[in-house]
This record gives sequence, structure tokens and C-alpha cells, in this order.
Amino acid sequence: MSVSEGARPDPSRVRLVGFDADGTLTERGIFWDDHGKGLRRFDVRDGIAMQWAARAGLAVVVISGKDSPALGARLEELGVPGFQGVLDKPACLETFARERGIPLADCAFLGDDLPDVPVMRRVGYPMAVADAHPIVHAVAAWHATSPGGYGAAREAIEHLLQASGRWADVLARYDAADLALGAAAGTFE
Amino acid sequence: MSVSEGARPDPSRVRLVGFDADGTLTERGIFWDDHGKGLRRFDVRDGIAMQWAARAGLAVVVISGKDSPALGARLEELGVPGFQGVLDKPACLETFARERGIPLADCAFLGDDLPDVPVMRRVGYPMAVADAHPIVHAVAAWHATSPGGYGAAREAIEHLLQASGRWADVLARYDAADLALGAAAGTFE
Amino acid sequence: MSVSEGARPDPSRVRLVGFDADGTLTERGIFWDDHGKGLRRFDVRDGIAMQWAARAGLAVVVISGKDSPALGARLEELGVPGFQGVLDKPACLETFARERGIPLADCAFLGDDLPDVPVMRRVGYPMAVADAHPIVHAVAAWHATSPGGYGAAREAIEHLLQASGRWADVLARYDAADLALGAAAGTFE
Amino acid sequence: MSVSEGARPDPSRVRLVGFDADGTLTERGIFWDDHGKGLRRFDVRDGIAMQWAARAGLAVVVISGKDSPALGARLEELGVPGFQGVLDKPACLETFARERGIPLADCAFLGDDLPDVPVMRRVGYPMAVADAHPIVHAVAAWHATSPGGYGAAREAIEHLLQASGRWADVLARYDAADLALGAAAGTFE
Repeated sequence: MSVSEGARPDPSRVRLVGFDADGTLTERGIFWDDHGKGLRRFDVRDGIAMQWAARAGLAVVVISGKDSPALGARLEELGVPGFQGVLDKPACLETFARERGIPLADCAFLGDDLPDVPVMRRVGYPMAVADAHPIVHAVAAWHATSPGGYGAAREAIEHLLQASGRWADVLARYDAADLALGAAAGTFE
Repeated sequence: MSVSEGARPDPSRVRLVGFDADGTLTERGIFWDDHGKGLRRFDVRDGIAMQWAARAGLAVVVISGKDSPALGARLEELGVPGFQGVLDKPACLETFARERGIPLADCAFLGDDLPDVPVMRRVGYPMAVADAHPIVHAVAAWHATSPGGYGAAREAIEHLLQASGRWADVLARYDAADLALGAAAGTFE
Repeated sequence: MSVSEGARPDPSRVRLVGFDADGTLTERGIFWDDHGKGLRRFDVRDGIAMQWAARAGLAVVVISGKDSPALGARLEELGVPGFQGVLDKPACLETFARERGIPLADCAFLGDDLPDVPVMRRVGYPMAVADAHPIVHAVAAWHATSPGGYGAAREAIEHLLQASGRWADVLARYDAADLALGAAAGTFE
Repeated sequence: MSVSEGARPDPSRVRLVGFDADGTLTERGIFWDDHGKGLRRFDVRDGIAMQWAARAGLAVVVISGKDSPALGARLEELGVPGFQGVLDKPACLETFARERGIPLADCAFLGDDLPDVPVMRRVGYPMAVADAHPIVHAVAAWHATSPGGYGAAREAIEHLLQASGRWADVLARYDAADLALGAAAGTFE
């Protein structure tokens, strides 16, 4: 039920995927200690997938409306570019994409809540975590089956790599190339 | 199954909403470290909704029976007024409301456990988190579908803003005004 | 499917209830930091119930096979007696009970895993958390519907207070005495 | 649906079981603080089972692709050998097993994600946590019903001890020998 006007959303065109942080890369909870410092929970499988994407030529960027040292440390470990305290997410993504010569029509964005709606309405391939707000689901062209912080980013990246034919390279690295055919999430088990 | 006597509970009248903290704004767990300090888990979507409420003219206050520096830090970040270590919740809410010229009949309170029952029986619109104690559900006029700490406060605030016609303003801020009609939680997806 | 020989398990006789710690008062997870310190997650509703029990004349004690400063801090805050690093749980409970003139036949014990089986087989009223090991369920006379760390202790205490006619006193304290009849967990909602 | 060629996977032959760490011994989340330090959640029932295994003559080893002081501290407490920052998991396990005179055909390995596939394809008895990636499930001969970090390792060890007739010894230690017959997970309750 995408609101993108014109062309039908096409995951195989995506060359850059942006991610919201709180509620998307992390679960929606923040664990506060006595000093007002917040722990955030990231999923290890999201992290490895972001590294796969970068090596496979699918650019990745994180755009957060908040400021969190925990997010900064996490992104530094992963080697993923990120912007924090961003008030205008569409402008931020557009600038980042233009510098790489990528139009917004070839960008995806994974979000969970209302502040993600403006940027999701501008990209060619808007994506929602499973536990996204109903309005976020309404503007998304693709819907993860995993909640934010529990593998939604991983699922999104696998989906984009499969759509553009880059998934087999990842499997080959793990001695699993012969298992590629049935590799769409959920088809085994 | 409300116990409020007289008038039928009416969410459109609510001008002030109070929240319990542990089990309502946080999940029921407290994470204790070796020094007896407790981490508490708050939901990011609850926080942003409290800020929407304040801007939309729906007053918000947190009333907790316990004392927790983590809660204090969280409230300070959000700019939300709160009272901790409160033995008499009804008196605390009544004083806070009276200073703003609001009768208890125009107040809501969201709670989860027995210590919230006395104040819930005094307000016009008592609300329960999804995982509230059965007796708390019995005195509530409205029941969240989300558990405490997992979006119950967010759901309560959206419900009150929708009932009083203030929800469209929030959506407009996020380039989502045209999606307002179906915006009741759960109707998309 | 209790293994207690002789008399049928009778919750109304219970005057002392013992609790295992890890997996029973906490969830089964321990959160380890870089220094090998472990955070443990306790349920706020368990804590308040332990205080109700003590005031209502139902003695409470925690017996843990491990040593954890976090547990010690939690028990001190609640004012609940506890023993840590206990190798022989039956002997520990028996001594504690004898000092209070209570035979093991009038004791309950709530556990989750194999190390709790020996003490559960000695008390008159063995209880299991919902996610207990199958063998622990096999020796229990009562089974919580809540997992360990998510309200199992609270549920156990409400059950024992109701069986011995002491639950109405708790409700009265919270302006809920008139709601006592349907108060068995799960009957509302 | 194992891919092991030749002999049918036989749990009674297993003399050494290897475990991945993140997502297998821990849940998939890492909790990051402001200093980029990560908390990891381990299951207490996994830990006690690793100690049972070692005493029962079933060798145990942890092989992780990452480096985490929290994992090191956890393994030291349990007295379990482990290797971190391992790039070549099959070579690491093979060397460890050969030093003990155990062929890979008599080894098991419990994993959750693609980096575990190469070693799982080399051992005689590959095992997957319940929330493993579909491709990991496809190469596994045995599938836990518990997710990683929530008892999958415990379940795996009980399965291997039962298959090799060593489970009754564990039960005897806990005064539960007479309950051994029905002890397969899930048959009570």
C-alpha cells in the first residue's frame, strides 16, 4: 500500500538504504541507569548484514533524530556512516545520496514511527519494521516480519541483496552457495 | 467494566493524564547491578507521545510510589513533570490538577497494579496497560493492547488525542495529514 | 502430579514460602558486562507481594545456590531474608523453618530447575514457575502461569494468601475490598 | 534435513560439542552503553548444563568469531574452554578435537547464523537454535525448540546426554533419578 506516486516500487533498483536508529536498529526500549545514561539493544545479525551490504556495493547509512553515544560507538565498530540529532531526515538522506550520485528514487529507507514518514515518502522503496506504527506501515512498500531491533534490518538487507542478485555472493563466502535457491527467509524449517 | 459512578467515561473530556511509572512507563522488570542500582526500560514511542500531548494542550504528569534516579533523568530529558515516592497518589494528582483548574472528572490515569487503584477510582477516565493486574482492569474504562513499557502510554495518548480531535495536528507535523482517517491503531497492516 | 507422599497438598496450611533466585525471582538470563559483573532482572510486582506476605503473617525466605551482590541488594531493599551460595537447600530451609516453629509440611517452595527438586520434594506444597524444567513441573503441586522473573512469585503469593483467607486484607489497603470476589488471577478481562 | 553425506547423524556418538557465542549462548541482542561496552545476556540453565556435560565426559568448547570481555568472564566462571576472534571456525574446532583424539564425525556444533555453516557442515552432528537463520536450519540434523540465549544450549546438552545414556547420572545428583523415564523435554506439563 505504498504512497509513492508513479513507478511501482522496485527493490532491484535500490543502491542505497537508510535506517532509522531507535525502534528500527534497536528495539523500542532504552534502558536508563541512575545517571540518565541509556543502554540500547542492537541485533548482532543486523550488524553483520550491514557489513555484507557495504561489501556488495549496496550503500548503507543511519539517520537518527536523537543523539546517543551508544549508537555512535556501535556504528564506529561496524564502520557504517551515520548522522545523529537530525531534524530534517529527507534533506540529510538526499544530500548523502546526491554525493554518491544516487537519486532518491533508487534509495530505500527502513523506519518504525511517525518521524520516519517524511523521508519514507520521498524514497523509491520505503520499508517498515514489523512493529511499526500503522501509519508507517501505510506508507511502506515492504514490511519486515521481524520487529525493530530483532532482525528487521537484516531481513531488509537480505531482501535487497536477493532482489538485485547479490545474495549468492554472500552465501558463497559461508560455504552455502549450493543452498541459495531456497534461501528466501522462512522457506526452510 | 468501569466502577466510575454516574457519568459514562468520556475520553474527549480529558485535559490531564497521569501515569504510574514502574510497570506502566517501564516494563515490570528492574535490572539490578552489583551495587543495587536499577536500570529501567522506557519505550521511545511513549516519550515522543508525551511531548506531543504537552504541545497539544493535554497536560501530562507522572506519579510514582517509588524513588528512582533513572526515572528522574528520563523525565528531565522529556521535560515532563513527575512526583516520586508518593504515598497518596489520589491527593498528589488532585493537587496537581487543581492548580491547573482541572477537576478529577476531566483527568485520566494509566496504571498497572493495585497501588494505582485508589487514584484510578477517583478520575473520570481510568486506563489500564494490557498486562495490568485483573483488579486494575476491573476498574479501568479503557484497556491498552500494549503492555506497560511497550507502548501502552503511547497508545493511551493517541487515544485521548483522537477522542478530542487533536490527532490530526500531530500527523500534519509528519507529512501524514492525508493518512489521518484510518489512523486508529491497528487498522492498517 | 505431586510426589509428596501421604496428605494431599493444601495451600491453606502454608505458613512459610521459600523462593529460589535465578530463574524464579529473576528471569533465566543474566546480563554480563565487560568486567564479569552480572545484572539481574527482578519483577516489581514480585517485590510488593513479598512485602504483603510478610505483613500478612506468611513468612518469606530466598534460598539461592549462587552468590550475587545484585540479589543481596534487592533483598535488602525489600527487607526479605535470604541465603546465598547454599549447597544444601533442604537443610537451609529446614533450619530456617524450625527456628520459627514451622514444620516442612507447612512450607511451600517455588523453583524452576533441577537444583530445586530436593527441597521441593521435602516441603508440603511445592510450586513451579511456568517455564520450569519438565521434571520440576513433575514434582510440583501448583504451577504458575507466569514465567520466572515475570510475576511467578507474585502469582504464588496471591494464591497462598487467597487460600488462607488473607487476600481481602491486601485489597482493603488499596480501596479494592469490594472487588475481592472475582480476584483470582485471570478472571477479569 | 542434514547435508552431512554418508552416515546418518547419530547423537549417541557425540563426544565433543562446540557452541557459537552471540546468538547461540546469548540472545541476538547486545546492549551497548555510552562507552561502546556491550552487555550480553546468558541463560543460567545453559551454564549449569555445560558443567554437567564436562563432568559426564562430554567435552564442551565455545568458538566465537567476535571478541568480547563479557564472554571471557562468563566462560571463566563456568570453567569452560573458549576461543574468541576466530576467523576459521572449522580449523579451530578440528585442532581442539584432534588434541583430544576425537574425529569431527564424533563432534556436534550448535549455531545460529551463516558464519556457523562451514563448521556445521564438517561435524557429524550439526545443531541449530530455534531462531536460527533458515540456511542454518537447512544444514542442521537437530533443531532446538528454544531460541539462542533462552535455553537452546541446555536443550542440546540434555539431548546429547540422553542419547548417550548419561542423563540418569545428572538426575541422580538432584534426587530425581526415579523421574528419569519421562524426562525428555516437554513430556510433562
